[in-house]
Amino acid sequence: MTDLKDRIKSLVGEDLRSIEEALEKNLNPYYDLVSAIAGHILFAGGKRLRPLLMVLSSRICGYKGNYDKTFSVLFEYLHAATLIHDDLVDGADKRRGKPAAHTTYGNPQAVLTGDFLLARALSLAARTGLPKVISIIAGITEDMSQGEIQQLENKGRLDLSEAEYMDVIFRKTAVLIRGACQSGALIAGANPEQEQALASYGQAMGIAFQMADDLLDYTADSMSLGKDIGADLREGKLTLPIIHALFQANDDDRLWMETLIRKQSFDDEEFRRFTTMIDHYGGLSYTRSLAVEHVRRAKQSLCIFPESETRQILDMLADYALVRKA
Amino acid sequence: MTDLKDRIKSLVGEDLRSIEEALEKNLNPYYDLVSAIAGHILFAGGKRLRPLLMVLSSRICGYKGNYDKTFSVLFEYLHAATLIHDDLVDGADKRRGKPAAHTTYGNPQAVLTGDFLLARALSLAARTGLPKVISIIAGITEDMSQGEIQQLENKGRLDLSEAEYMDVIFRKTAVLIRGACQSGALIAGANPEQEQALASYGQAMGIAFQMADDLLDYTADSMSLGKDIGADLREGKLTLPIIHALFQANDDDRLWMETLIRKQSFDDEEFRRFTTMIDHYGGLSYTRSLAVEHVRRAKQSLCIFPESETRQILDMLADYALVRKA
Repeated sequence: MTDLKDRIKSLVGEDLRSIEEALEKNLNPYYDLVSAIAGHILFAGGKRLRPLLMVLSSRICGYKGNYDKTFSVLFEYLHAATLIHDDLVDGADKRRGKPAAHTTYGNPQAVLTGDFLLARALSLAARTGLPKVISIIAGITEDMSQGEIQQLENKGRLDLSEAEYMDVIFRKTAVLIRGACQSGALIAGANPEQEQALASYGQAMGIAFQMADDLLDYTADSMSLGKDIGADLREGKLTLPIIHALFQANDDDRLWMETLIRKQSFDDEEFRRFTTMIDHYGGLSYTRSLAVEHVRRAKQSLCIFPESETRQILDMLADYALVRKA
Repeated sequence: MTDLKDRIKSLVGEDLRSIEEALEKNLNPYYDLVSAIAGHILFAGGKRLRPLLMVLSSRICGYKGNYDKTFSVLFEYLHAATLIHDDLVDGADKRRGKPAAHTTYGNPQAVLTGDFLLARALSLAARTGLPKVISIIAGITEDMSQGEIQQLENKGRLDLSEAEYMDVIFRKTAVLIRGACQSGALIAGANPEQEQALASYGQAMGIAFQMADDLLDYTADSMSLGKDIGADLREGKLTLPIIHALFQANDDDRLWMETLIRKQSFDDEEFRRFTTMIDHYGGLSYTRSLAVEHVRRAKQSLCIFPESETRQILDMLADYALVRKA
């Protein structure tokens, strides 16, 4: 399955290099410390999925300008801003295998650098001169902050419904990826049908991506994940695998799972038993099937575009959501 | 001196009521909790100085539209966002006589609600449809977050210079007030000379305002201030009164002051002695004279506008910066 990653990388290698350059060039902080803290998360091996999606979305709509890479990095800044604030909010101490920003530099510095990155993203949005792009970016930030607050409030709630889970992952993950794709269409001057198609692609892809991410917490090993496994469970964060399993389980097993969730601490043996149990009740396969369905929808949305290498790469990126290991 | 406050209030009473209405109407959070946290700081008796400055700035440039109040509240949202994050960053537990948002609702919720308010401000900026206004707002946020980080890094630095102090207060306070005034000019379609005059007014006023604020920490009583006096000193935050006094003091007194600053804790008697000492070395009068000079510059900037009630109110607001008690 690393095959797919390698194939994508060989097709978008040049784009990724330009994006990497633009990420450095457009950060422009006034103070060195801001540069260091922002760089800590920005240059720690992110996948650059969001900028790449914007660049490919503008390309599939026939964009011929020179600003796609520059504008695209705003989505990475926005992403990095939310990662910094979320790690702090979740009390997570690792990110991409490195200490989280707030652990290294302190909470106040992390809050303020997140604010700076948010502002930098919006400055770049303003530079597009497209009011709709600017509204989208501002709307994304509103949605993401509210999705995170909602997730926080949901922590430990054993009666969380699938609909509430979908609402949160839509806000905290899908709107950003949708926004990147839609903004790509907008800078290319796409027609409304193309804009809508790419927005749908991004939204479905974002949901699949988050579901796959939530699965990794129960299927990956901590080395490839770059953070501790079982982190969601330890925080009392109920994701779809658990929600589904709790719904399906018999009374005894549900009680055992609920007790473990409430405790928010467990040893390796208990975590293994918990994972086996949610698997037994179809939590993992159900989540995977929904993710697969969203990938299908994402690719389906692209059918209005004629076959092309760009469309093929977008298809592959949707598939990649499901097979990635971190 | 409450006279001035009452006179201003009677002249802008209707504007303030419309601003208050717009503050409620444009917040629009999706979740009740976000509304509660944002409301906690937004509706705790703020002066609405920034929205008012935008409304008056657009009026003095002949604005005849209906959107000045709506747009103006973005500056209060932005202000509230930074207050929430700053209280958290400073570990301050009181704001306007009430517990700070992070104390009541928790740090994570405070971080995310600040993000939401920031985003809401930018959504409103996007609605102006004026790229320059949007760039200004994004730039303000970049400056403010960096000014706060710099202030944080400066904490406890006994060698802080007056120039460094000016740099920080410019970023953390003056750019926002300047931005409110400049944006008022821009929505009114003002000419460049008018826009520049109002930007200069706002910048000078913002600096005077912050200097007066820094003085209050040594001259006010905690009841009217709505927070503990001596908070700056307790946090190791060196403001102009101290910077100037340290520069002027003899070796013995400087050593005593430096020791107290390093200790970051003191009783009432020590604080009184400290205040007497910085007063003795002209720290208070020097800061006050610079604030007076900036108020003069602010009013001077308005000379390009013919005499009018609006110009008179803007003059009075500049004067108010110096006489306010909280």
